[in-house]
Amino acid sequence: MALRWHSRNRNGVLYLSKLYVVGIGPGNYEEMTLRAVRALEQCQVIVGYTVYVDLVKRHFPDKEFLTTPMRQEVERCRLAFSQAAAGKDTAMICSGDSGVYGMGGVILEIGVDYPQVPVEIVPGVTAALSGGAVLGAPLMHDFAVISLSDLMTPWAQIEARLEAAAKADFSICLYNPSSKKRGDYLQKACEALLKYRSEDTVCGTVSNIGREGECRKLYTLKELKQVQTDMFTTVFVGNSETKIINGDMVTPRGYQIEGKK
Amino acid sequence: MALRWHSRNRNGVLYLSKLYVVGIGPGNYEEMTLRAVRALEQCQVIVGYTVYVDLVKRHFPDKEFLTTPMRQEVERCRLAFSQAAAGKDTAMICSGDSGVYGMGGVILEIGVDYPQVPVEIVPGVTAALSGGAVLGAPLMHDFAVISLSDLMTPWAQIEARLEAAAKADFSICLYNPSSKKRGDYLQKACEALLKYRSEDTVCGTVSNIGREGECRKLYTLKELKQVQTDMFTTVFVGNSETKIINGDMVTPRGYQIEGKK
Repeated sequence: MALRWHSRNRNGVLYLSKLYVVGIGPGNYEEMTLRAVRALEQCQVIVGYTVYVDLVKRHFPDKEFLTTPMRQEVERCRLAFSQAAAGKDTAMICSGDSGVYGMGGVILEIGVDYPQVPVEIVPGVTAALSGGAVLGAPLMHDFAVISLSDLMTPWAQIEARLEAAAKADFSICLYNPSSKKRGDYLQKACEALLKYRSEDTVCGTVSNIGREGECRKLYTLKELKQVQTDMFTTVFVGNSETKIINGDMVTPRGYQIEGKK
Repeated sequence: MALRWHSRNRNGVLYLSKLYVVGIGPGNYEEMTLRAVRALEQCQVIVGYTVYVDLVKRHFPDKEFLTTPMRQEVERCRLAFSQAAAGKDTAMICSGDSGVYGMGGVILEIGVDYPQVPVEIVPGVTAALSGGAVLGAPLMHDFAVISLSDLMTPWAQIEARLEAAAKADFSICLYNPSSKKRGDYLQKACEALLKYRSEDTVCGTVSNIGREGECRKLYTLKELKQVQTDMFTTVFVGNSETKIINGDMVTPRGYQIEGKK
């Protein structure tokens, strides 16, 4: 291996190459940050879950792409570290942001085994933001982000967080609202929210944000309880002041607007 | 005025020009999305709070820039609409995301007075994500975003949300932790959090994210209570499992990591 690029990591140790953890945003190239694009351009190897690799592949045709299936996140991280440790600048890509249910945390955890590889976390536009923009402005006031996936979190804890967020009148953004094995989780979540929130609470869903087939829908919380979603959908539940303005979901921030019709 | 550009808004009405609400990210050009850059390139007029206009000005030297001081958000929005209504593609810029304590909501509220002007919300990387990436990965699990500004929200409601988020063990990101008039708000917030959370809870602050003078610091929650911050600081409070790994603040997602040292 040729010594390609010398630099120093935080501890002043010489290193050869770097591991970037890159949030690529919702999936369309346009929604990536310039920093994310430059990080991917800098790398020889791009590692990720198959679906996300397919989203970026055509924009970086000269790169080496490595994928692992879903549920093999730890293996995927070790694969990325092994590439970087072998001297190749490497990017681990995540949809949305690298630090919101992304690979940023597990990369830093595993990083203790690879002290010679410096890690740079590159943030991106997470679905709460990109989906919110499609619906209008549902997260203009305090909000909570909760994943309904109970693969690694007990349902009782998810439910406690739903109830706490509902009771304190947060706007709420739900990630992973359902999957094949969890067909009724959104319904269960709505039941938890309805303990403290009106049936008329303004809600919205956005599917395939920034990708082909993007689709937004508005509901009341009562209606949302009956909705079937999939793993490419993000769900928004307004706070008690959220309203529909000209077809958009808007949570007011509290500005006094004089002269408004 | 020449008819410059014809298109149709959502209701099929012919319009002349458009109002973009653009999240510019933390402030450095690199952290903008390609979509945000293209929206600003498309516009003749860029409107914003003076500080944010100064951040983008040199990258778009041929634009007309209009500013209003802080606290004049509604006037700023009407200024932007009046430009767009007069036939100029116009961008209202916001730091971070356009929909998180940004101008997206108030633009859509005021938009009922300007039905001929179509609005496009362009999301951006909010400080929870950009600051999180600087600290490590503090928001890898469910999290709440709370502003400590009581300009438009009663303190009792802010405190109730702090306590609810603490009790349900969310990671918490605090915006607007203090200002000249609110020197002790972060201290009061920490006191609310300490009702339910350990004094040893891992916390972090990031100042001037992505700008000159960027600075990150780690604290315990007990220490954070004594910290003086400013309006350019974002504060992160971990959940009960958040830890410091190799100097970074990391909230584990729950992956089983075999072979970890």
